Amino acid sequence: MSRSVYIAGVGMTKFGVLKESLVELATSSALEAINDAGFSDYNIDRLVIGSQNPDEFTGIGHLSTLIADQLGLIPSGATRVETGPSSGASAFEIGYALIASGLADSILVVGVEKMSQVSRSEASKILAKVLSYENEVEYGATPTALGAMVARRYMYEYGLCRNDLSLVPVKAHRNGSKNQRAHFQNEITVEDVVASRIVAEPLTLFDCCPTSDGAAAALLLSEKIISKVDREKRIKILGLGHATDYHAIQHRQSLTSFYGTIYSSQLALEMAKCSLNDIDVFELHDAFSILELINMEDIGLVKVGHAIDLVKANQTLPDGKYPINTTGGLKARGHPTGASGLAQIHDIVQQLKGTAPQQLQVDNAKIGLTHNIGGFGNNMVVTILGSIY
Amino acid sequence: MSRSVYIAGVGMTKFGVLKESLVELATSSALEAINDAGFSDYNIDRLVIGSQNPDEFTGIGHLSTLIADQLGLIPSGATRVETGPSSGASAFEIGYALIASGLADSILVVGVEKMSQVSRSEASKILAKVLSYENEVEYGATPTALGAMVARRYMYEYGLCRNDLSLVPVKAHRNGSKNQRAHFQNEITVEDVVASRIVAEPLTLFDCCPTSDGAAAALLLSEKIISKVDREKRIKILGLGHATDYHAIQHRQSLTSFYGTIYSSQLALEMAKCSLNDIDVFELHDAFSILELINMEDIGLVKVGHAIDLVKANQTLPDGKYPINTTGGLKARGHPTGASGLAQIHDIVQQLKGTAPQQLQVDNAKIGLTHNIGGFGNNMVVTILGSIY
Repeated sequence: MSRSVYIAGVGMTKFGVLKESLVELATSSALEAINDAGFSDYNIDRLVIGSQNPDEFTGIGHLSTLIADQLGLIPSGATRVETGPSSGASAFEIGYALIASGLADSILVVGVEKMSQVSRSEASKILAKVLSYENEVEYGATPTALGAMVARRYMYEYGLCRNDLSLVPVKAHRNGSKNQRAHFQNEITVEDVVASRIVAEPLTLFDCCPTSDGAAAALLLSEKIISKVDREKRIKILGLGHATDYHAIQHRQSLTSFYGTIYSSQLALEMAKCSLNDIDVFELHDAFSILELINMEDIGLVKVGHAIDLVKANQTLPDGKYPINTTGGLKARGHPTGASGLAQIHDIVQQLKGTAPQQLQVDNAKIGLTHNIGGFGNNMVVTILGSIY
Repeated sequence: MSRSVYIAGVGMTKFGVLKESLVELATSSALEAINDAGFSDYNIDRLVIGSQNPDEFTGIGHLSTLIADQLGLIPSGATRVETGPSSGASAFEIGYALIASGLADSILVVGVEKMSQVSRSEASKILAKVLSYENEVEYGATPTALGAMVARRYMYEYGLCRNDLSLVPVKAHRNGSKNQRAHFQNEITVEDVVASRIVAEPLTLFDCCPTSDGAAAALLLSEKIISKVDREKRIKILGLGHATDYHAIQHRQSLTSFYGTIYSSQLALEMAKCSLNDIDVFELHDAFSILELINMEDIGLVKVGHAIDLVKANQTLPDGKYPINTTGGLKARGHPTGASGLAQIHDIVQQLKGTAPQQLQVDNAKIGLTHNIGGFGNNMVVTILGSIY
């Protein structure tokens, strides 16, 4: 049996277009995670950084050593992990593995991205590198263009209306408006979504997450030292799943379902020895509105084509049966790519501790699930976290 | 107790300025590692890629998904690991952790870099990003400039002569000339080293490793499935150590000793439960000639200031008491940064299996050590591998 791994503390900066540097964001979230654990009687054995592309977004390289130095963690080993926009969740997975393997007892995991230093067109170019060059980018495809194609196909297959799809970002902004760390804290209406400018038809500006700056962090401890942390502060890592899919979307069997989500969530549930019914709160990667619906179906919450029924019935709100993206999701909380996976974990941990922002707290949440996508519909990482175990 | 992890096969491309693409290099070394294991009755659970900066060296992003797709590993999880020029050894460390933790039973670890697509000045700029910008790069420092400063100080402190230092690259080229995968396969003399052009005084061209293209790979299996591999093909991972140092060299206590090497090699020896006397063959990160001498002293092979005595006495040759960089090291084998850590492991594994190139085989080698540096004197990863355990 491998060793159990716990989250002893989490930290997160506000997300948005921020003045702080990449390093300042990373260290600030890390220090908050350390303080959140509320004790200091240990060394930090390792640092794991998740970041998609600090070199091209900011010009800064060798991030793992740089942050270890700034945090005073020398001579602890430091590693950067990259899987595109799921780099944060991947760093968390590697942090888990380093402790469960016995190589470390305490690990600081930090996800960070600063995307606003480059122009929007430059940022789009960097982000498009997650796609297949030969099959997609060479012909002008961007992640948003593929999102639009998927949305169009889903609408055709399942009769989804434009105004129905808009309910997803409306809910995201509703939640974001109550989250002081969210990039967007304003409510929007269904009419606002349709009236906003078209980015890639049928997706409008409000169907798409922003490019953001921000960082989030978690302090992981082994079963050996978690006893020093107050019982009510301990969150256990119950399950992890990680799966890829064919790089180019044209090589996959479906446009409207991502096998990587199906497979990675199955792996995580098997490891956690629990069923979907046991999960009280969800973070699903909603970089585009259509993805939230597809993710709900792929993890198995609802029959294919019917995710919108749950949204319409308010079942995905914090007080619904399946609370999803209770703090705004990538759409409203923001999407500093390397940070998003850890922001999801930060917010689920708060839910499980009962410390979520007011009006967003899910009653009696004991087990939560995060789902982070690394490319366009590939390199997914799913985590299952619990306050009872 | 965590689970034991074994190397079942290794692969490596020739190093040099090559026509193959980044992806072709990576997949070619990976397939060789799979074939080397000599059996196929398993799935590969994960792919871990070590690469320093594929985005800026080649324009290619999202490498982990791309290589998983090309190798037919979908839907296995795929992750890229980056710690500068020790990315290959770091990927290997993460591969170990993923298996020892129980998250996987079989992992393909691939280190790759293609550095020749950009101009030399562009490559130098990318490589300099491992240094501290505020303390070093802003003032024009490059890794070679820091190497020169360290060499100069070492010569002053310990009376090392220019012609003595030249013995290190002479030995590297001697070994490289017998290794068909080496970037440089020509012998050189002490006179050649001094006569070659000065890169950063006192270091000449022959004191410095080249920028290379290449890839190396290892197939790791858990104790659960290693029994399917022939007994004489199994190499066990006995120890791992990973340590950082202050990012800027001016913040460290010494110019002529790297604490990260001292600490990471101690960690690896403790984990392996062996002493330095048990190690039969070494790979030490010789990006600059002076580093080989400093590394010998930092891991504890010889008293400070006396590494050159072992070189002069031919004790670092394949038939010496301390065989070091028997296949040419970074200097002659070449240094495609993300690949070097796994090339070291590839060559140590061959030594332990008795399949090293003719004239380079160390007699009866049972335990080997690799040491890979990630920045300039920081982010070191040390591995200890054994054919008896």
